[in-house]
Amino acid sequence: MTSKTNCTRCKKGKSIIELVYNKESLCKKCFNNLFEKRVRRTIRRGKLLKTTDKVAVGVSGGKDSIVVLHMLSKLMGSMPKSELVAIIIDEGVAGYREDAIKMAEKACDKLEVTHHIFSIKDEYGFSLDEIVKKDDSVPACSYCGVLRRRILNDKARMLKCDKLATGHNLDDEIQATLMNVIRGDLKRIARMGANVGVIDNKKFVPRIKPLRESPEKEIGLYAIANRLGAKFSECPYSFDAFRKTIRDMLNTLEEKHPGSKFQLLRTTDKLIPMTRECYKVQKPLSMCSKCGEPTSDKICKTCQMIDKLKSL
Amino acid sequence: MTSKTNCTRCKKGKSIIELVYNKESLCKKCFNNLFEKRVRRTIRRGKLLKTTDKVAVGVSGGKDSIVVLHMLSKLMGSMPKSELVAIIIDEGVAGYREDAIKMAEKACDKLEVTHHIFSIKDEYGFSLDEIVKKDDSVPACSYCGVLRRRILNDKARMLKCDKLATGHNLDDEIQATLMNVIRGDLKRIARMGANVGVIDNKKFVPRIKPLRESPEKEIGLYAIANRLGAKFSECPYSFDAFRKTIRDMLNTLEEKHPGSKFQLLRTTDKLIPMTRECYKVQKPLSMCSKCGEPTSDKICKTCQMIDKLKSL
Repeated sequence: MTSKTNCTRCKKGKSIIELVYNKESLCKKCFNNLFEKRVRRTIRRGKLLKTTDKVAVGVSGGKDSIVVLHMLSKLMGSMPKSELVAIIIDEGVAGYREDAIKMAEKACDKLEVTHHIFSIKDEYGFSLDEIVKKDDSVPACSYCGVLRRRILNDKARMLKCDKLATGHNLDDEIQATLMNVIRGDLKRIARMGANVGVIDNKKFVPRIKPLRESPEKEIGLYAIANRLGAKFSECPYSFDAFRKTIRDMLNTLEEKHPGSKFQLLRTTDKLIPMTRECYKVQKPLSMCSKCGEPTSDKICKTCQMIDKLKSL
Repeated sequence: MTSKTNCTRCKKGKSIIELVYNKESLCKKCFNNLFEKRVRRTIRRGKLLKTTDKVAVGVSGGKDSIVVLHMLSKLMGSMPKSELVAIIIDEGVAGYREDAIKMAEKACDKLEVTHHIFSIKDEYGFSLDEIVKKDDSVPACSYCGVLRRRILNDKARMLKCDKLATGHNLDDEIQATLMNVIRGDLKRIARMGANVGVIDNKKFVPRIKPLRESPEKEIGLYAIANRLGAKFSECPYSFDAFRKTIRDMLNTLEEKHPGSKFQLLRTTDKLIPMTRECYKVQKPLSMCSKCGEPTSDKICKTCQMIDKLKSL
């Protein structure tokens, strides 16, 4: 007789997670199989990797980026012509970032992945702590998001990488969909998806999201169960009231109607081509008149932010 | 000095409602003004009415249909070439429907609107109570929705009406949007909107929804404040767990981020043309091989249901 705590697949191992949407409870081995199979499927179906790709992965030290690093290292181990490098960004958040960077470095060393550390302070003259002190009229995340994305793209290009991988997960994706739908910002949906950038501009390193079909909860469990050494605490500056409402809404929805999160990802995948067609996002972006990087305005967001900070 | 319970518009009347999304509290008179102006705007912008239209309004006796009847009667009073008739449907739900029908009749008499009562039993041989006893494998609302919509369309066409008005409100609309988005049923979004039917087929009487920009809560208050005599209790058969989750989600969202419901309606209005274009819903539907009415299948839903009931 199978006890309630035994794995419903192999009937032997002790269950470590109940996947309500699949009506099963899995042991570590079967869960790892399911998790890794899903990431491989995301990569295969989305054509995210070529066997000759040089891939940069942005590693923050959080569970998502540590898991994506681990998965890419595992998969690309069997592609002798491919190469994986890590980019670690020091945003400059005293008392929080140091730990995460150590964990990111440790993970890279363990997997023998070359890593490069860049700091917002070195690149733009201000740490995030200093930015927050200078300008509290804008959420810290707005500054951090723009500058971090820019550094990741610049450095991945400098390192001659073909792809830039990030740790965005299923929850991130569908939260973005619902936020954009409720706000009516359908143009932003056009820029979502697993492989954005390819359609945009040669100055953009195509971004790939191997975890976009993996629920956040399962990524966390994968990191813990396999002792990958990831940071779980959130950045002290991170707070987005609207995203929090949406996250809570989606968690309640999933609890009451299991499988809804995957459903919403499938809707997202229908909305992306529809909105791309409607808003013609394939057209080449213009160039920033200050730095020459791609932008939808005359001056790019990064230059606008740095100019503002220098004037304060 | 203005007390907290005074109207923030006229500064005189006693406030009866706080509109958080507008940061104001309104007295009955100012609220009526706002409410009626909004309905007029919905009709004007959506081009829902012509001055020569004969309009049938489906009146259930619930607050939404009583308010739409009241508003159309008020507006069409100044259009001498227009005509308003009411269609009341008796679904056959003992202990619930009788009351609502009396209220619907009373409202029509008061406004001097001719009304016609039709019953599901007379039209199809079974009351809703009998249908539920015969077939409990399908929710009662599925039968009721299909048969009621069909009778409304048939009778509006028989009465030579140019439009068929229903009491669908803002909450109904955005719940439908979110349900369709989460389920991935984007084709259904193509069929939403204020004036559906026009694009479909001559056998369809164009449906109009004058209350689609009016929040349910405000419709309820308008009915109570103006003593329109509407039924507020829900049908005993009405239960949709998924819709309930979505309704609760949207109410929480509106409470935390006032104005979100209106935002989602605006998104809906962007999604409708986008999905219509994508799914080409303008194409003429085919005809039911049994009754000749428009359908997307070979045999229409109504004939399928009646055949099933007769075989049970």
